[in-house]
Amino acid sequence: MSEKTPIKMLHDRVLVELDKEAGERRSSGGIVIPATAAMGARRLAWAKVVAVGPQARAVQAGDRVLFDADDKAEVEVHGELYVVMRERDVHAVAAERVGDAATGLYL
Amino acid sequence: MSEKTPIKMLHDRVLVELDKEAGERRSSGGIVIPATAAMGARRLAWAKVVAVGPQARAVQAGDRVLFDADDKAEVEVHGELYVVMRERDVHAVAAERVGDAATGLYL
Amino acid sequence: MSEKTPIKMLHDRVLVELDKEAGERRSSGGIVIPATAAMGARRLAWAKVVAVGPQARAVQAGDRVLFDADDKAEVEVHGELYVVMRERDVHAVAAERVGDAATGLYL
Amino acid sequence: MSEKTPIKMLHDRVLVELDKEAGERRSSGGIVIPATAAMGARRLAWAKVVAVGPQARAVQAGDRVLFDADDKAEVEVHGELYVVMRERDVHAVAAERVGDAATGLYL
Amino acid sequence: MSEKTPIKMLHDRVLVELDKEAGERRSSGGIVIPATAAMGARRLAWAKVVAVGPQARAVQAGDRVLFDADDKAEVEVHGELYVVMRERDVHAVAAERVGDAATGLYL
Amino acid sequence: MSEKTPIKMLHDRVLVELDKEAGERRSSGGIVIPATAAMGARRLAWAKVVAVGPQARAVQAGDRVLFDADDKAEVEVHGELYVVMRERDVHAVAAERVGDAATGLYL
Amino acid sequence: MSEKTPIKMLHDRVLVELDKEAGERRSSGGIVIPATAAMGARRLAWAKVVAVGPQARAVQAGDRVLFDADDKAEVEVHGELYVVMRERDVHAVAAERVGDAATGLYL
Repeated sequence: MSEKTPIKMLHDRVLVELDKEAGERRSSGGIVIPATAAMGARRLAWAKVVAVGPQARAVQAGDRVLFDADDKAEVEVHGELYVVMRERDVHAVAAERVGDAATGLYL
Repeated sequence: MSEKTPIKMLHDRVLVELDKEAGERRSSGGIVIPATAAMGARRLAWAKVVAVGPQARAVQAGDRVLFDADDKAEVEVHGELYVVMRERDVHAVAAERVGDAATGLYL
Repeated sequence: MSEKTPIKMLHDRVLVELDKEAGERRSSGGIVIPATAAMGARRLAWAKVVAVGPQARAVQAGDRVLFDADDKAEVEVHGELYVVMRERDVHAVAAERVGDAATGLYL
Repeated sequence: MSEKTPIKMLHDRVLVELDKEAGERRSSGGIVIPATAAMGARRLAWAKVVAVGPQARAVQAGDRVLFDADDKAEVEVHGELYVVMRERDVHAVAAERVGDAATGLYL
Repeated sequence: MSEKTPIKMLHDRVLVELDKEAGERRSSGGIVIPATAAMGARRLAWAKVVAVGPQARAVQAGDRVLFDADDKAEVEVHGELYVVMRERDVHAVAAERVGDAATGLYL
Repeated sequence: MSEKTPIKMLHDRVLVELDKEAGERRSSGGIVIPATAAMGARRLAWAKVVAVGPQARAVQAGDRVLFDADDKAEVEVHGELYVVMRERDVHAVAAERVGDAATGLYL
Repeated sequence: MSEKTPIKMLHDRVLVELDKEAGERRSSGGIVIPATAAMGARRLAWAKVVAVGPQARAVQAGDRVLFDADDKAEVEVHGELYVVMRERDVHAVAAERVGDAATGLYL
């Protein structure tokens, strides 16, 4: 098979690129807390959307999305690691385009 | 990515700011009971709503909401810790605006 | 936040005040059986309703309700302990107002 | 609270009075088999209905009903032990009134 | 209570009489295999229908039915052991009346 | 009961006859791999359909069907072992009649 | 039975041929990471579609599909190993035909 076959997401799937630093958190005092330090809580993470399936309506390629990093499905394409999730499992989106609907928080 | 990307909640998600003291309870005699002391019961906690998704109808930013703290999903934005939940998992709301529908209890 | 913010229950939630003696049972001979003695059975308990959400229809503030005490969600407001449940998990109600529909049993 | 508050069942709940001897079975040869002897099978038991909620249609107060005794929810009222179940979990009813629909078996 | 109260099945329940030999299987060579020998598979068994609830449509009293014996609910009436199941959990019926719809297998 | 009672499948049930050799697989090099060698994967198997219930539409008696052998329900009729499954749990069918819809694979 | 019986997929099932190298991943530096190295994440894999059932609409024979390799159901046909899945469990498709809907990623 050629190295040029295009990839398309199906259903409501969202394909994201993990941030390199997604595995760790920084406390308000600047101390790095490893991802495994969060006990009794599920750990959410941000990642950049690469592509969405035809039934995903609220997120677009280029958005950054907030999702549950504890139950992620990974795939590697040419040495880069990606994660696949369902749009209904995305909690929030960070993007210039969200404008008025925004939370008052910024990434 | 700029530090100015606005964040928007999706679906029925509610983003809250945890009270600093949320991890502990005070008995009627004033003795502090650590959060882990509640055995055989789920522990509810109050937190202030920062933003809600478009399908959340009963709570607003600024409300304080009662939720189940034992199964929380955390995210950190610029050193502050937030929790994401679904509106249907919010048990009660404390806000000046609730007026007549109130319980007779006050926070 | 002021100490005067009114609290409102959401959805079908019911807020109850636990009876002080709810943790123990008395056998017909008057011997006190601690709550943990009931083996192989779920333990039901009575509690007084303080407030109900807008979708709760069969119980009212002031009623005493029968519920499953083994899976309770607790919240403390100013040193008093309350429990939150869903109305569909309430098994029975004891109240002067139930009149004709009553079981023939009295609390 | 007065000792005279009437109790009403909610939804499809059925309140039954356990038979004193419900905890044991007698083999066809008359040997008593303790309730815990039934291995790999759920144990059904008969009990007399005291009251039913407004959505229970197939059983009435005074009927004896067959139910799964392994997952029972108990409540004590004035020293007597009762069990609460949902009508859909009742397998059979024994009552003079069932007449023609009966199985040919008698209690 | 008199020993003459008739019993009626409710909903889609089916009451069956276990075959005396239901606990064991015989290999094609005639060797008896105890019921517990079947590993990694659920064990089905035949039993004779005594009565059915009003929502059971495909089986009748007198039929023999095939069901999953690993999850049975037992009740004893006057020293005889019966099993209660839901009609949807009955896999097959053996009866003279099935005629044309039959499998070509005979009991 | 006579040994001539015909058997009829109910609902969407499918009755199949296990292949004698169903318990083992052969690697492409011809080495026999016992069924238990497949780790971390569910093992599918082929079997011949003997009879189907009235709600089974895609398979017929005489077809060979592909199903999940790890969760099978077995019944023995006159010394022969059969398996019962639901049609929705059948993954594929091998039969002369499938013609044009076929996969290009042959059994 | 002849070795020429055609096979047809049922319902929404998808039959795929596993890539020979599906069991391992290569890091961006070219180091081979065995499949079991992915901890706390589900491992996705690519495979080529051989056939689809009549209710599968988004994938076709010849496509390569992305699926969750941790819960696969395997079947061997004449010494070759195949995997069966449901179309709704396919996350993405790689095929020349996807053209405009593609992610910008290529296999």
